[in-house]
Amino acid sequence: MVNCAIIGATGYTGMELIRILLRHSYVNLSILTTRQKEAIPVQDLIPQFPHDLDLVVRQHTDAEIKRNADVIFLCLPHTEAAETAKKYHAAGKIVIDLSADLRLKQAGLYRKWYGFTHKYPALLSKSVYGLPELNREDIRNADLIANPGCYPTAAILSLYPLLEKGLIRKESIAVSASSGVSGAGKKLAQNKQYYELDENYYAYKVGKHQHTPEIEQLLSEAAGKKVNLSFVTHLLPVQRGILSTAHVIVTSAAKQKLLRKTLELFYATEPFVRVLPEGKFPSIKDVCNTNFCDIGIFTEKGSEKAVVISAIDNLVKGASGQAVQNMNIRLGFPEDEGLRSW
Amino acid sequence: MVNCAIIGATGYTGMELIRILLRHSYVNLSILTTRQKEAIPVQDLIPQFPHDLDLVVRQHTDAEIKRNADVIFLCLPHTEAAETAKKYHAAGKIVIDLSADLRLKQAGLYRKWYGFTHKYPALLSKSVYGLPELNREDIRNADLIANPGCYPTAAILSLYPLLEKGLIRKESIAVSASSGVSGAGKKLAQNKQYYELDENYYAYKVGKHQHTPEIEQLLSEAAGKKVNLSFVTHLLPVQRGILSTAHVIVTSAAKQKLLRKTLELFYATEPFVRVLPEGKFPSIKDVCNTNFCDIGIFTEKGSEKAVVISAIDNLVKGASGQAVQNMNIRLGFPEDEGLRSW
Amino acid sequence: MVNCAIIGATGYTGMELIRILLRHSYVNLSILTTRQKEAIPVQDLIPQFPHDLDLVVRQHTDAEIKRNADVIFLCLPHTEAAETAKKYHAAGKIVIDLSADLRLKQAGLYRKWYGFTHKYPALLSKSVYGLPELNREDIRNADLIANPGCYPTAAILSLYPLLEKGLIRKESIAVSASSGVSGAGKKLAQNKQYYELDENYYAYKVGKHQHTPEIEQLLSEAAGKKVNLSFVTHLLPVQRGILSTAHVIVTSAAKQKLLRKTLELFYATEPFVRVLPEGKFPSIKDVCNTNFCDIGIFTEKGSEKAVVISAIDNLVKGASGQAVQNMNIRLGFPEDEGLRSW
Amino acid sequence: MVNCAIIGATGYTGMELIRILLRHSYVNLSILTTRQKEAIPVQDLIPQFPHDLDLVVRQHTDAEIKRNADVIFLCLPHTEAAETAKKYHAAGKIVIDLSADLRLKQAGLYRKWYGFTHKYPALLSKSVYGLPELNREDIRNADLIANPGCYPTAAILSLYPLLEKGLIRKESIAVSASSGVSGAGKKLAQNKQYYELDENYYAYKVGKHQHTPEIEQLLSEAAGKKVNLSFVTHLLPVQRGILSTAHVIVTSAAKQKLLRKTLELFYATEPFVRVLPEGKFPSIKDVCNTNFCDIGIFTEKGSEKAVVISAIDNLVKGASGQAVQNMNIRLGFPEDEGLRSW
Repeated sequence: MVNCAIIGATGYTGMELIRILLRHSYVNLSILTTRQKEAIPVQDLIPQFPHDLDLVVRQHTDAEIKRNADVIFLCLPHTEAAETAKKYHAAGKIVIDLSADLRLKQAGLYRKWYGFTHKYPALLSKSVYGLPELNREDIRNADLIANPGCYPTAAILSLYPLLEKGLIRKESIAVSASSGVSGAGKKLAQNKQYYELDENYYAYKVGKHQHTPEIEQLLSEAAGKKVNLSFVTHLLPVQRGILSTAHVIVTSAAKQKLLRKTLELFYATEPFVRVLPEGKFPSIKDVCNTNFCDIGIFTEKGSEKAVVISAIDNLVKGASGQAVQNMNIRLGFPEDEGLRSW
Repeated sequence: MVNCAIIGATGYTGMELIRILLRHSYVNLSILTTRQKEAIPVQDLIPQFPHDLDLVVRQHTDAEIKRNADVIFLCLPHTEAAETAKKYHAAGKIVIDLSADLRLKQAGLYRKWYGFTHKYPALLSKSVYGLPELNREDIRNADLIANPGCYPTAAILSLYPLLEKGLIRKESIAVSASSGVSGAGKKLAQNKQYYELDENYYAYKVGKHQHTPEIEQLLSEAAGKKVNLSFVTHLLPVQRGILSTAHVIVTSAAKQKLLRKTLELFYATEPFVRVLPEGKFPSIKDVCNTNFCDIGIFTEKGSEKAVVISAIDNLVKGASGQAVQNMNIRLGFPEDEGLRSW
Repeated sequence: MVNCAIIGATGYTGMELIRILLRHSYVNLSILTTRQKEAIPVQDLIPQFPHDLDLVVRQHTDAEIKRNADVIFLCLPHTEAAETAKKYHAAGKIVIDLSADLRLKQAGLYRKWYGFTHKYPALLSKSVYGLPELNREDIRNADLIANPGCYPTAAILSLYPLLEKGLIRKESIAVSASSGVSGAGKKLAQNKQYYELDENYYAYKVGKHQHTPEIEQLLSEAAGKKVNLSFVTHLLPVQRGILSTAHVIVTSAAKQKLLRKTLELFYATEPFVRVLPEGKFPSIKDVCNTNFCDIGIFTEKGSEKAVVISAIDNLVKGASGQAVQNMNIRLGFPEDEGLRSW
Repeated sequence: MVNCAIIGATGYTGMELIRILLRHSYVNLSILTTRQKEAIPVQDLIPQFPHDLDLVVRQHTDAEIKRNADVIFLCLPHTEAAETAKKYHAAGKIVIDLSADLRLKQAGLYRKWYGFTHKYPALLSKSVYGLPELNREDIRNADLIANPGCYPTAAILSLYPLLEKGLIRKESIAVSASSGVSGAGKKLAQNKQYYELDENYYAYKVGKHQHTPEIEQLLSEAAGKKVNLSFVTHLLPVQRGILSTAHVIVTSAAKQKLLRKTLELFYATEPFVRVLPEGKFPSIKDVCNTNFCDIGIFTEKGSEKAVVISAIDNLVKGASGQAVQNMNIRLGFPEDEGLRSW
């Protein structure tokens, strides 16, 4: 049994972590923190839970956390996350950070995309980007894991293998992605009011979405040179789910048929990526409340164009599920422990 | 006053036409047809209408239609539409066809994209593509109007001026578009059941959507040479609305700033196209139940990439509203007659 | 032409009034006010409107309002409405108040149900309760009209005639009613966030809903003695619409068959109440964006129990549409002017 | 380990049973049947499941079923269920029937409410009504369990204890209940199409709902004499969940305060019924995907009226979850095995 702490347990990703870790056979949920002064019984936060559940979210001292947790999940706002990661990493804990604070390798990008100067650039080189399908071996030994963003998880998984094999042109990747409203967090906002979002759909943060450099970093890694993305995000009138539609151009029409094969091969043994058969494409409903990333691909003989579509649940594979997958890998638990879809 | 007939008045576009034409000051709705044997009072079809409305959808003989209608709107399935268009065109009527039967100039494309051989290719050269913003002058004299498709209306309006001015590269246009469920018509289908579509979102007909050649035809016209599109359509859990997100590459980074200006200039006097100010992007809610097409554009200094996003109501500007706009132009009525958004 | 002012034009009922009055042939929308310092073009408030609409919501002085408005619609919070009604009534204007401030005849009830002491009880006896189906003659001469609440409109219209004729027992009326979220206004609230309300449904303000005394007042009037209601309101995951389901007990089983007849007769000439045929029951979709109240009734031979169900659009017949209907009656305009459902 | 069969596994209740039983520590899902000729991998039916799941829904012979199943869950249409129940009961199996075929004690009621003559009235006296909170002891020994209907579960749990203690008047119980669309099953229907149900809400089967006699049977049992209900069901634009609002009249105003206490006491040790604290009322979201029934009660000092509101997930506590709860009781498993809400 491993003792786990969730720092910032009252937001959507924190709540999702609680759900998953309660199903986990080898986890003791020892610490659930909030900044709020009053303790909150977990069943008040998640009314679907039994009223006699003996689990409370409350303030904890550093000493308590250090004493009672082996793995620390950070569900904190940007900048606060880095601060906290540094502290518990120094204390020898395994830290899995669900914020973006440890994801970008170039500290300078934080200023442009997140609007703040990164205080602990040294952490950036120490942390492992926790996308198991790419970095499983590094994750096995990592004590500082940067859990990927939701859009990046969907987009990178659909494109990385193709770029790595040189099958698609790095200059003309266009990704239109759409997310359910939980991706925008729990904070009150006019645009998230039911009357506004219901029956609506629109693009937001066009040209400015902070996940852009994260996707570009990984795709550049795959391509071996700088990839610039055309990336547009949209808000869907649903609670959960991300669908990412990538329009790509193959490096040569002759290679069209290699695209599907490459994806199938790359993910052949992956427990949580499903490459769908020809003619089938993912839907967010098929992956919601699961840790799966579904990928569908369309190619046409003789054409240079191809489309790769992927879907995830933004709160599971796009956040808390992937965080637990990372922990499972790090600690040698079965990779799907706590993550089965029934 | 002009006598109007709606042939096939029981589907979504027929019903929307009834709504609009009842608000029209110069129209007498003289003929509403259905294939069903029994007559249907319009208020049974559209329960929001007063119960004492004296308007009935029923079978009509050809003779009745010819005698009692000056303008004939066709809301018929493919192939049946062409047949009917031919007949009433020959009888000297103004025919506005909401199907795809008159839209494509190359008859051969119908086989590939619609799965049937076009029986009346001669009609294709006689018909005018009824997109007022491009063809207003031709529409003024047209007796055979091919009313554009919903996705094409949104996509073409956002891209045509840019291609015409040579501002964007014709080889790498990628359009991700999403539509509300009314775009798929009234027919019962498992994927349109509430339980299936609610909280869902997915791409459909990937690489096979029948609106692809229609968009390509118009964009090729704009570019002066063949344009091939990467075009992916998605189904949204909403009743109405289309959002089209076009990823484009400018022909030279220096021309970035011309994109917005070109769109603004092109649509400066258009009553139904609104180019949004910088930093604003369309949402389907803002155009639903209106005949507007909203367009937003993102460009970035020094970058070759740009994004053009447009939104329409698929049943209004994407079908019945545009049909009435076409009639208004043809008959010299105020262009927004029946189409005001309050 | 009559000059109309909307005081408090930025909320949902104010916006709905703008929509309706723009369609009205005899109205000039001369004054639209807000408390906000900066003027707001109406098209910023209602993006479905043309961008060149020359109509602005802004602060106005009392003098301006008095000079430029004949009819004054109040869309103000409680207490502020009474204050304002008093002022413009004294100035000789026709005041139609959409708040509850003028609805209850007993001033004391405001303390219990609304939590404030009514400052102008004298207004309560001067105002006419603006439910045209009950008070049309009084409305014709009224200068102070208390526009009914949304739930009351639905509930009263379904029950008043039955109580008046002594057909149902006044002791055991139970009404379960459900409303779309616009009924709760525009103010930000956690329970109105999309993530909370989507896929949800629940009762709220149980035993405490402020519309209870309003319904009881009118039903008591009908019955000729005090009626106490069991009234429960629920929140629906939809934008608009109220459905009211009333369970009643007939005064004698023999009178069952009189219920339907009584309703049919009572509303026989009403333009906006539709008593549905046997076996048919209202749905909110059938009345949304209309000024109709649909009523369905179930009775069973030999049984003492009956059910009367009614539906309205809470923003139209339940608020702004009814306000315009009242103005039409007061000024002798056609009663459905501005209120047609196409 | 117990071998379980689901007869009719492709509908919503069958699928929900699969989900729950896969989480159950003591169950082997040995038989999943369908009438369809071709076998269906479970992951095709429930795409959220892993693609390598080795579980197939297919036709099975009687012999196979008898050999390989100890407990048999019937998810079959009416009449077919009774037939099948009889067969496997005779073969010594534990049969849990999710249809209505074994629920009503008076065979004659089937004709009136379900429209067929019950062929096996003898089964009706043998079967135990599987509402654990009322019949736990009988369920422990039952081989033929009539799993309650969804509306009845919600309504009965909220009213039974009050009637049993004589606290409410049996003559004037009015229940307005609303259900998500999954309650209507998987069959294609126009009224279940997204375009029709979205943004809609209405009463259906008014005065004719087949669950009425089931509720009346149990409430009559509680009251010790015939209870007639005023019961109206409504369709909600959500996937799952039932909310039941019961308006009741207390037998004497003095007993008001006993209502809450009676409910609290009755359910004090129940694992799946939660009586909410004063001022709190259930919402369907709080019970969805759980086996809980939440109950809230409103009483007012001096008043004769009270309201009891309950909520369940129609597919879990209202069907498959309760079926598993019944099996757990029958076989001595922990009652919440497979039914925890995380």
